[in-house]
Amino acid sequence: MSHFADRLNELIRKRGTPLCLGLDPRWESLPASLRVRYDDNAEGRAEAYREFCSRVLDLVGSRVPVVKPQAAFFEACGPAGFEVLRGLIDKARQMGAMTILDGKRNDIASTATAYAEATFGLWGADSLTVNPYLGRDAVEPFVTAAREKRGGVFVLVRTSNKGAGLFQDLVCDGRPVYRHVGERVAEWARANVGGDGFGDVGAVVGATYPAELAQLRAALPEVIFLVPGFGAQGGTADHVRAAFRADGLGAVVNSSRGILFPFAPDAADWEARVVKAADDTIGALSVK
Amino acid sequence: MSHFADRLNELIRKRGTPLCLGLDPRWESLPASLRVRYDDNAEGRAEAYREFCSRVLDLVGSRVPVVKPQAAFFEACGPAGFEVLRGLIDKARQMGAMTILDGKRNDIASTATAYAEATFGLWGADSLTVNPYLGRDAVEPFVTAAREKRGGVFVLVRTSNKGAGLFQDLVCDGRPVYRHVGERVAEWARANVGGDGFGDVGAVVGATYPAELAQLRAALPEVIFLVPGFGAQGGTADHVRAAFRADGLGAVVNSSRGILFPFAPDAADWEARVVKAADDTIGALSVK
Repeated sequence: MSHFADRLNELIRKRGTPLCLGLDPRWESLPASLRVRYDDNAEGRAEAYREFCSRVLDLVGSRVPVVKPQAAFFEACGPAGFEVLRGLIDKARQMGAMTILDGKRNDIASTATAYAEATFGLWGADSLTVNPYLGRDAVEPFVTAAREKRGGVFVLVRTSNKGAGLFQDLVCDGRPVYRHVGERVAEWARANVGGDGFGDVGAVVGATYPAELAQLRAALPEVIFLVPGFGAQGGTADHVRAAFRADGLGAVVNSSRGILFPFAPDAADWEARVVKAADDTIGALSVK
Repeated sequence: MSHFADRLNELIRKRGTPLCLGLDPRWESLPASLRVRYDDNAEGRAEAYREFCSRVLDLVGSRVPVVKPQAAFFEACGPAGFEVLRGLIDKARQMGAMTILDGKRNDIASTATAYAEATFGLWGADSLTVNPYLGRDAVEPFVTAAREKRGGVFVLVRTSNKGAGLFQDLVCDGRPVYRHVGERVAEWARANVGGDGFGDVGAVVGATYPAELAQLRAALPEVIFLVPGFGAQGGTADHVRAAFRADGLGAVVNSSRGILFPFAPDAADWEARVVKAADDTIGALSVK
């Protein structure tokens, strides 16, 4: 298998878009016609998420290079939810997409390794998101495990939420904490660079802070960005333009609710609306 | 149900120790006589963890006020692991202990709420650990969910690992990042203080940094500390003394490997060794 970043870039070129489809299923947002067939308990919700997300993958999974399930919503359904999560990751990969398991996991040493082995082994994902607060010996086990599987790691640098600045914006030695995190991410990325010049350690940088996105792009040329906050959270195609290198590579842009739920729960044509939302987003985010 | 901190302190007084028993099962460390009866796959490991941890709880669960399962090792066993995790939390509570689900979860808004609801609902834990890097609107959903259930939250402030300082020690406005995090934790704690003067939002502060532990104790009088790093990681009873208020309250001290695995895998008397390790640790960490 080739380098994580090379595989990702090849798929982005082939599918003509850097769009990452986020699978964040929410019980209250599901089409009513689907939801009514399931019990409102952990197992029922898990099965409803399986049907809904599978249907969305059938509709758009072959057109997006990346699929990113949000672990929290599956974990909230208990053991049945993890079984469904595993099936959806497998389905996405069968449709030729790469996968990011978005769990923002973090811990030290062998505990971090346990999380990483679950991600790349049991769940079968190509990459995962990791929270850097615990420091070097908490991030490096994820990087080591990813490299063994030719996978990738996306480290939280600048998140897309309104309260992100509370600690990320604290200024140390003349620059904010998130820039310090970004510099370490660049170090990890440079240790294993693929043919396109990108490493296998990426950074999560929110679409909702375009000026910072541009600064980070310039400062971290080897780092692929996973950009959340597009669409429902307020980020636009203009906002995310700065995430890319001049050749159009260097970032994947996530949309979750904007594609999953562009309809009221009682809409009879929800599938057509999902396809249209994907069309529109792919149109807005094309790669030359 | 009474305030989280009051319940915790009452139990610490009643059992005469602030010891938190960490459940971090590791396949390669299990007693060989037990391990040989299980398959070395996800389901087999999960069942072996169930038997081993249940047996340890039978031996010492009624003597410790707090039990803290490490989510990573159960997650590494897939859906079967989560089923076992749920059973162990239930067993610990039936033995009168309070529980901390150590998952270091973190995310924003409704995603954070999904994690919190799983912790307090599905898994049935009394509290959980949370990573603060994402900021205010990522921590507060956990606090809100905990308050609804009279539960607690422990926010990572100063972790016990060697590489913790990479970001936690960056100095901003004259003090390190972890002190800034501590100050916000104190704010959250002060919003709901129980009869003993402690809030329902605590801080994770490693035993391996005793000077910082003392400074944080003085700076954050309303904050209960969860202190990892005791025993196998190098922290001693002297190191953790500074975590307590003058009346002996204010902290729970975790030991995982030191109590779970004080034996070679082929030791025939592993159960006696677990009891002795618990005795020794409780003796070293008594509450007046």
